[in-house]
Amino acid sequence: MKLQVAMDVLTTEAALELAAKVAPYVDILELGTPLIKSEGVRAITAIKTAHPDKLVFADLKTMDAGELEADLAFAAGADYVTVLGTAGDSTIVGAVKAANAHGKGIVVDLIGVADKVTRAQQVTGLGAVFVEMHAGLDEQAEAGFTFATLLTDGETSKVPFSVAGGVNLDTIAAVQRAGAEVAVAGGAIYGAADPAASAAALRAAIV
Amino acid sequence: MKLQVAMDVLTTEAALELAAKVAPYVDILELGTPLIKSEGVRAITAIKTAHPDKLVFADLKTMDAGELEADLAFAAGADYVTVLGTAGDSTIVGAVKAANAHGKGIVVDLIGVADKVTRAQQVTGLGAVFVEMHAGLDEQAEAGFTFATLLTDGETSKVPFSVAGGVNLDTIAAVQRAGAEVAVAGGAIYGAADPAASAAALRAAIV
Repeated sequence: MKLQVAMDVLTTEAALELAAKVAPYVDILELGTPLIKSEGVRAITAIKTAHPDKLVFADLKTMDAGELEADLAFAAGADYVTVLGTAGDSTIVGAVKAANAHGKGIVVDLIGVADKVTRAQQVTGLGAVFVEMHAGLDEQAEAGFTFATLLTDGETSKVPFSVAGGVNLDTIAAVQRAGAEVAVAGGAIYGAADPAASAAALRAAIV
Repeated sequence: MKLQVAMDVLTTEAALELAAKVAPYVDILELGTPLIKSEGVRAITAIKTAHPDKLVFADLKTMDAGELEADLAFAAGADYVTVLGTAGDSTIVGAVKAANAHGKGIVVDLIGVADKVTRAQQVTGLGAVFVEMHAGLDEQAEAGFTFATLLTDGETSKVPFSVAGGVNLDTIAAVQRAGAEVAVAGGAIYGAADPAASAAALRAAIV
């Protein structure tokens, strides 16, 4: 199982600083959606240039103009670009076309999708390399949110999946047992007093 | 009825050039999602600085972290920021909180929502100033797309709405008859040989 850090910071400078600390312990460096909207795709280029040996994940959360948006991010240096599961199929197909042209991959973020299992299977059929079983920052704060549902949905879907939204030292073993390809940790790393130590501990928890 | 131009270009320079041509004929200057992802929120600041007398619409299409993303765009100079109708209610509520703090407005983009009428009424109840009855660029290219459904949905919802996705000289009268507060023209303006003439013609078609 790979470890991905979601860098939910707001400036390229802060992302570069965080990436420098945690890169030795993670496989995938993710630029969060607010960071990309704040700084533009130049933030992707800055991270990929600083860490050419790492996979760079651009969380575009594309809803329309799939080919155009994905192409912008891949051209800037992304290895993975996200499209929303709530987007239409033609948007996902367009983004996959851009990924194929660059030899890279589209990940579908299932945030906000009611039936995540069915949609996971559909979008994998459309060419997504994996899906993200994801509870958003806002959703995690809602009453009734259960992390376990994300894991069950991933396991049931029988397609390659990552898990995001509540991954930490207490939950990462369950994420691996559910069969995730990638565990995505955000606040557990960037919100820690010592992000490098937190990333190292999460890495050590993967067996 | 107000006229909004959706500037689906990819650089701040191109947006400034287009805005300079069409501003005399429109009420609202919209920065498209790919433009914001490409350039970052500095593009919003550039447009608002060049056109302080116009309303600036930042099409963020936010799906998560509603308050944070909306705050970024309002702080950069936006008058309106979009959140997706497929986002959770807590994301919309967060974005409305940021809008209220800035004395500005949240618009909910109903792209990808199956029951647009019901969702339009829900999000207006959550504090959206209007909803966008919107068919995306990808959706417009799909077989079976009908512009008329957007108008019927807007009329049926009985809440303030704009219409986007197929507004041009042939359709703008129907948009006004349906009771839209705002008609959003994209390709009909930016794709025209003479964007200023096209914007002027659309303006003249509003009675």
